[in-house]
Amino acid sequence: MEQGLFTANNVWMLVATCLVFIMHLGFMTLEAGFVQKKNVVNIIFKNAMILAIGLLTYCIVGFNLMYPGEAFAGGFFGFSGFGLSMPEGDAGAIDYASGGYTYWTDFIFQGMFAATAATIVSGAVAERIKLNSFLIFSVVLVALAYPITGMWKWGGGWLNTAGFYDFAGSTLVHAMGGAAALAAVLVLGPRRGKYFPNGKIKPIPGHSMPLAAMGVFLLWFGWFGFNGGSVLSADPVAVSLVFVTTSLAASAGAIGAFVVSYAMFKTHDLSMVLNGILGGLVGITAGADQMGPMSAILIGLIAGFIIPLSVVFFDRIKIDDPVGATSVHLVCGIWGTLAVGIFGSMAGLKQLWIQVYGVLAVVAFTFVFAYGLMYLLKVTIGIRVSEEEEVKGLDVEEHEMHAYAESVEDSSFQMSVK
Amino acid sequence: MEQGLFTANNVWMLVATCLVFIMHLGFMTLEAGFVQKKNVVNIIFKNAMILAIGLLTYCIVGFNLMYPGEAFAGGFFGFSGFGLSMPEGDAGAIDYASGGYTYWTDFIFQGMFAATAATIVSGAVAERIKLNSFLIFSVVLVALAYPITGMWKWGGGWLNTAGFYDFAGSTLVHAMGGAAALAAVLVLGPRRGKYFPNGKIKPIPGHSMPLAAMGVFLLWFGWFGFNGGSVLSADPVAVSLVFVTTSLAASAGAIGAFVVSYAMFKTHDLSMVLNGILGGLVGITAGADQMGPMSAILIGLIAGFIIPLSVVFFDRIKIDDPVGATSVHLVCGIWGTLAVGIFGSMAGLKQLWIQVYGVLAVVAFTFVFAYGLMYLLKVTIGIRVSEEEEVKGLDVEEHEMHAYAESVEDSSFQMSVK
Amino acid sequence: MEQGLFTANNVWMLVATCLVFIMHLGFMTLEAGFVQKKNVVNIIFKNAMILAIGLLTYCIVGFNLMYPGEAFAGGFFGFSGFGLSMPEGDAGAIDYASGGYTYWTDFIFQGMFAATAATIVSGAVAERIKLNSFLIFSVVLVALAYPITGMWKWGGGWLNTAGFYDFAGSTLVHAMGGAAALAAVLVLGPRRGKYFPNGKIKPIPGHSMPLAAMGVFLLWFGWFGFNGGSVLSADPVAVSLVFVTTSLAASAGAIGAFVVSYAMFKTHDLSMVLNGILGGLVGITAGADQMGPMSAILIGLIAGFIIPLSVVFFDRIKIDDPVGATSVHLVCGIWGTLAVGIFGSMAGLKQLWIQVYGVLAVVAFTFVFAYGLMYLLKVTIGIRVSEEEEVKGLDVEEHEMHAYAESVEDSSFQMSVK
Repeated sequence: MEQGLFTANNVWMLVATCLVFIMHLGFMTLEAGFVQKKNVVNIIFKNAMILAIGLLTYCIVGFNLMYPGEAFAGGFFGFSGFGLSMPEGDAGAIDYASGGYTYWTDFIFQGMFAATAATIVSGAVAERIKLNSFLIFSVVLVALAYPITGMWKWGGGWLNTAGFYDFAGSTLVHAMGGAAALAAVLVLGPRRGKYFPNGKIKPIPGHSMPLAAMGVFLLWFGWFGFNGGSVLSADPVAVSLVFVTTSLAASAGAIGAFVVSYAMFKTHDLSMVLNGILGGLVGITAGADQMGPMSAILIGLIAGFIIPLSVVFFDRIKIDDPVGATSVHLVCGIWGTLAVGIFGSMAGLKQLWIQVYGVLAVVAFTFVFAYGLMYLLKVTIGIRVSEEEEVKGLDVEEHEMHAYAESVEDSSFQMSVK
Repeated sequence: MEQGLFTANNVWMLVATCLVFIMHLGFMTLEAGFVQKKNVVNIIFKNAMILAIGLLTYCIVGFNLMYPGEAFAGGFFGFSGFGLSMPEGDAGAIDYASGGYTYWTDFIFQGMFAATAATIVSGAVAERIKLNSFLIFSVVLVALAYPITGMWKWGGGWLNTAGFYDFAGSTLVHAMGGAAALAAVLVLGPRRGKYFPNGKIKPIPGHSMPLAAMGVFLLWFGWFGFNGGSVLSADPVAVSLVFVTTSLAASAGAIGAFVVSYAMFKTHDLSMVLNGILGGLVGITAGADQMGPMSAILIGLIAGFIIPLSVVFFDRIKIDDPVGATSVHLVCGIWGTLAVGIFGSMAGLKQLWIQVYGVLAVVAFTFVFAYGLMYLLKVTIGIRVSEEEEVKGLDVEEHEMHAYAESVEDSSFQMSVK
Repeated sequence: MEQGLFTANNVWMLVATCLVFIMHLGFMTLEAGFVQKKNVVNIIFKNAMILAIGLLTYCIVGFNLMYPGEAFAGGFFGFSGFGLSMPEGDAGAIDYASGGYTYWTDFIFQGMFAATAATIVSGAVAERIKLNSFLIFSVVLVALAYPITGMWKWGGGWLNTAGFYDFAGSTLVHAMGGAAALAAVLVLGPRRGKYFPNGKIKPIPGHSMPLAAMGVFLLWFGWFGFNGGSVLSADPVAVSLVFVTTSLAASAGAIGAFVVSYAMFKTHDLSMVLNGILGGLVGITAGADQMGPMSAILIGLIAGFIIPLSVVFFDRIKIDDPVGATSVHLVCGIWGTLAVGIFGSMAGLKQLWIQVYGVLAVVAFTFVFAYGLMYLLKVTIGIRVSEEEEVKGLDVEEHEMHAYAESVEDSSFQMSVK
């Protein structure tokens, strides 16, 4: 391959890595915006730690579990050793991916992906989970569950052999993270004061809509790298088509959620429109390279329709998810996976059937894994903060600080020494 | 063309697309920061919807109106059909732009531009316009007005034939959006409590300077793609020169606004410096590829000088523009367009004259179009929220939520069911 | 060189420029988050002005002082004239850097770096320095001190000849900025009400943890350009390795600060984890291209360990640094510079010794320069705001505005005319 082309490919993959990185800022501000003021430090702390833990864990075991190479290719499980094995010299790193990117690029791009799975969970379990239990849960999820199911398709495992298609991870990242979130919420229970015996449901509004909206825009921005980078090269037609389908689906998701939520609530609900955008993005992810503009718009629109219905549904069955992660990532992730079998160049009953059992397999495995893990943590170190801490807020109890401190106006206040 | 070069060109255009995308986050936080706390959800809602509406509208009609191809090239109006026509296979998409980028890249880059025009308006009419009227106004503006005037130059129309020069849109995007904003504000009227019969003017400060400042930095960031992408390839000399002129003009804009606003108000006015940066950016946009560093600094400096004068002028004549969009986009847009005839490689009386009538034509057309459209909305569905709603804030009335909710401290509060 | 490769190289350098640009937004939100509510406008104003001043100053003198070319190469000082000398035609601009980037790219990438040095200072001296004195200090620092020490290594001066290694500026940017910050704080003194005669120390918490956290994530994002662009081409193996080492060090920095701060304070201290990430990033900067993943993790981990210890140490000796800039940039900058002699491909006693005297030379020169300059300002125009202004806040006194204005709920308030 000519050097210029290889370099351009690798530049794009690194830019895509930066974009996926900034999704973590997007998740952070989205989740911070949707929680109460008293739990903001806590959710930020988790998001910062998840990224650190996710990259280190993926470096030590995850990457080698997900791409075991010759070891157990085609199967259910494989492992090619701990840590990153630096290829011998430049040639080794370059030859690695036949023209698309180097060994290092592959790791860092995939590593940024891996950390997102745990981040999806953090929003759903916000405002009542113990910090240390959540961090342990995240380590195990990124170290084992994410790479194992990821390997089934992207590592050349059994779902790949079966013809399952998931371009950038509607199933492998979003439905996977959403299934883990659902399992975690079921073990954890709702926030106190949310559901009442008489069937009443109290909305607990997020503390900052600007933060939440900023998060959605940053996620859309990052999705250009998430989907665009999943081409695994800078192929001009493929990457630019992915940009178009991704943007149109996100836009249509906003419109879909706008229309349905207005019909349902008779008001212009900002949270719904924001989650509609995310739903559209998750929905197009499985087939962003397979669709024309019209199909992309339809997929996004339907994802947007789904969002308000799904959010209300989960609330009715007392699944308390402060940021709507289950609706966005699990429900729209499943929708997007199925959409590959309905629209675009892969449409067909046979493909649809493969899509169904592929997403079911990943969701079922992850759900059982996450439920078991969370249950284990519950009966050992405990997963739920005390009632007192939940009322006071996790910021004061776990972090001894407020997200928004008032200015010190004079020097007559009580002094304290650290 | 060698494949590596084509790929590098296309990668740059896609990165530029991402950068122009993030300008929408910049506009959102800028406008959110400059409005009152009670109207924050509303302005965010509009910005999110504009982006969605803008991309979809541009996909369905705008793109084909702006680039009609053979249809009516050289004229005032043309249309090549609804929707995107997917070229036949990869070759069709690649051959499209002789080495710069694919068909899809062209659409998505131009689509991101189109949505900015409506966004410029949203800041100027903030805090008193009806949501639905504004959304209808935006749809029509992006669907018709923007692509028609855009076609005059970038689509190969009559202004292009006449030798008018507007590299990245001082006229076609900024003065156009600013003229629409001015017309809309004139029909809409000022916020109540802003101007008093005795001639007094009450400042209504924005609710968050960090949000506003963040917006300006994100806009500068995005401008690297807005101007740098307007090279329409990754040509190393052209794009890097554009980076230099853009940055120097923005910097000089800050200095210019700092000096003049200090002289006028005897204080260090942050809003003026922030708008000075934007003024410098708008000013350099028409000729960013034609200037040396010294000319770029001068253009930016003068734009910075203009900002405080223009803001005070519009306030004196009771044009109420909460974010200063008219000064930044219309006034500095005109200045930047003229500057092409004064500085740089195209300087000359003849060019200056062409620049004058080019910008006048676009501004006049847009002003009349926007004024008529807004007037039509006024006499039909109405454009202004009720006095009560304006006092209470649009967030509560239109969206039934607050931008910044307080934490729920106990469970004894009143329960409500959605 | 083939055109595609040159173009890909230049695209990457321009993307890296955008990323380093966004670090200025990161510094702005980080510093804004860590100061009190009453000083937020002031810190934002400074950050906006520093960027403008930095780029213009670097354009006029800095760039030519730092890269004097033939003039005094190998020595301690050189200057090749004022302003940017536009090369003759495209060829001149292209030939400039033997295949990596154009003349314009070189300037704008380096210019973005230069402005960061002054930004590091602004956080440390926040909440009590006079605005004009700070701006003068910044101009001189970016115009003279930064390019002179920068030239010693990157301009081909005596430290380069001696074999000193500083890949992307642990010494030349971070320790340099940190040393200037330390000197400035020593002349300026601590905020009033911070240290008490009886030895008590009062924590003054920052007003917004979301802003601070956003800053850290944006800085990490920008660091991909800061370190990745320092390869000075898009060399696939080198840039991707730099991405990996940078990310792993940042992650390990978070873990290191988490562990040590928990041991010290028995709480989960968000500020420490955030500064731990920055410490890891500063630490890896000197040798990001020389390390394997394991070494990068160790370097970051140790930087993370250092952060809480250093922050407490400076507080004990009454060096009042509101954002911890001295610990992050000076202390971890020194650590990162030494780490090049301890880990990776350049490890060895000889190299370690060169690293020691290189960083000492730059720190000593900068400290003396900054101390003298700040002292000169102190005895002439004064550097410290009045006691009354410090208590009331700099926003009201210097800028006549609040960072967060309340909404105007009716029109019966007192009217004022500007």
